[in-house]
Amino acid sequence: MKTKKIAFQGELGAYSDEAAHTYFGDNITLFPLRDLSDVFDNVTNRNVDLGVVPIENSTEGSVNQTYDLLLNTSLIVCGELDLRISHCLIGNINANINDIEKIYSHPQALAQCSKFLKQKKWNTIPEYDTAGSVKFIKHQKIKSNAAIASSRSAEIYGMKILRRKIEDNPDNYTRFLIISNQSTKSTGSDKTSIIFSVSHSPGSLYKVLEDFATRKINLTKIQSRPTKKEPWSYNFYLDFEGHIDDLKYKELLKTIKPKCGFLKILGSYPKTKR
Amino acid sequence: MKTKKIAFQGELGAYSDEAAHTYFGDNITLFPLRDLSDVFDNVTNRNVDLGVVPIENSTEGSVNQTYDLLLNTSLIVCGELDLRISHCLIGNINANINDIEKIYSHPQALAQCSKFLKQKKWNTIPEYDTAGSVKFIKHQKIKSNAAIASSRSAEIYGMKILRRKIEDNPDNYTRFLIISNQSTKSTGSDKTSIIFSVSHSPGSLYKVLEDFATRKINLTKIQSRPTKKEPWSYNFYLDFEGHIDDLKYKELLKTIKPKCGFLKILGSYPKTKR
Repeated sequence: MKTKKIAFQGELGAYSDEAAHTYFGDNITLFPLRDLSDVFDNVTNRNVDLGVVPIENSTEGSVNQTYDLLLNTSLIVCGELDLRISHCLIGNINANINDIEKIYSHPQALAQCSKFLKQKKWNTIPEYDTAGSVKFIKHQKIKSNAAIASSRSAEIYGMKILRRKIEDNPDNYTRFLIISNQSTKSTGSDKTSIIFSVSHSPGSLYKVLEDFATRKINLTKIQSRPTKKEPWSYNFYLDFEGHIDDLKYKELLKTIKPKCGFLKILGSYPKTKR
Repeated sequence: MKTKKIAFQGELGAYSDEAAHTYFGDNITLFPLRDLSDVFDNVTNRNVDLGVVPIENSTEGSVNQTYDLLLNTSLIVCGELDLRISHCLIGNINANINDIEKIYSHPQALAQCSKFLKQKKWNTIPEYDTAGSVKFIKHQKIKSNAAIASSRSAEIYGMKILRRKIEDNPDNYTRFLIISNQSTKSTGSDKTSIIFSVSHSPGSLYKVLEDFATRKINLTKIQSRPTKKEPWSYNFYLDFEGHIDDLKYKELLKTIKPKCGFLKILGSYPKTKR
């Protein structure tokens, strides 16, 4: 089997790296990239086969940048997975937890460990990436520096785990999407993601949701994001159960289209088990 | 008139400081605090009269931390305002734009200036606060350091504006809420904010929105946030036009209550002109 080329944002050892291995197995070549927009660009330009991007954390909520990138991409969402996120406090090999003064990590990881971080007067410093923070404190070689990241990243960079499971909520998951140039066939247990806008008038959102409700279609997520065109106007991102190739959903989209100022189908993909 | 004590997050010169002056005028005493949670705590403990907190930016979207703090507070939303946000690149007095290598600011401000920041290979560094970044680069006295913040903060700290209006979108506004221990009477042109949850079954959100639609009540914002209890379960934050003391809206809330797993009224307040 040909080795798949997979792009993700962050350094090796990031949660997106773990997500890629969980979804595709180990026969993959990883392309760690600086920005989420680079992941979309590299899939679009076919430098890689697929991209793995975080879309939502079960505690902290949506990853807005991914939502905004989905609006303007020509790529197709072809898969999803939920990854259990367990954070570790990671230090240099010679460090103990009492040595720590500064803690580096991605703002979402810091937010997910807020109770742990309130225990002492640590100085928390937001960084672009969890695994990148581990790489950074390794490079700095300062005993009082620590990072919050995955146990995998401690292993990759040969660093010491000072404390495991420091997340506030043990039920902490991140949902990732797989982005591709190719669509996925119906499996009988699928989900579809769409983006739409409605007019400012009373009942306009309700009238779109009505078409889902009368067909007893289960909505798994609704998220509003600013259109960035006119202030206080929104696009709605909707995930629902069903595949766009199936007649019921084709008809549904035909019905809602005239009610939406804008409608984009991001893709249909096999539903992850929850 | 008694001087009002107003708490906000950030340093003097932050956009929340500007929002407080815009809303209350100059007869106020400001309490700049490190975290948004400190603002809620200081109003709750009556150390101050009121708090001013950002809830949403018209380009970057919701301020999740404020949404999450509103869920657990006993405070009442008693006002709102939209503040036009125009960012400046600010440096030390002896600096020119060509000297700049590192740019410090709040992640939302950096995101709002992403097009400007792509022009050169600047190193961008996320900080807790816009005005705090100006204070920081002043303290560091390094010619190659700059911050993104308001023109007001350049004035307060005696720093140099290197470039004005660097935000991507000239229609860039932040909506602030005023939080208080006291509710506000109906003015005839009000808005109400509520939080509710619905069951996982098909049509459950639709059935709540139906009660607004049949009464022709205009929804101005709907936002979902994780409950943080069970993964992939959500609370919905809804703003609508009307005051909770008026009969029509009292009846509405009585109707939707049994359809909601959870319902909390955040407050009714005079609507800002848009």
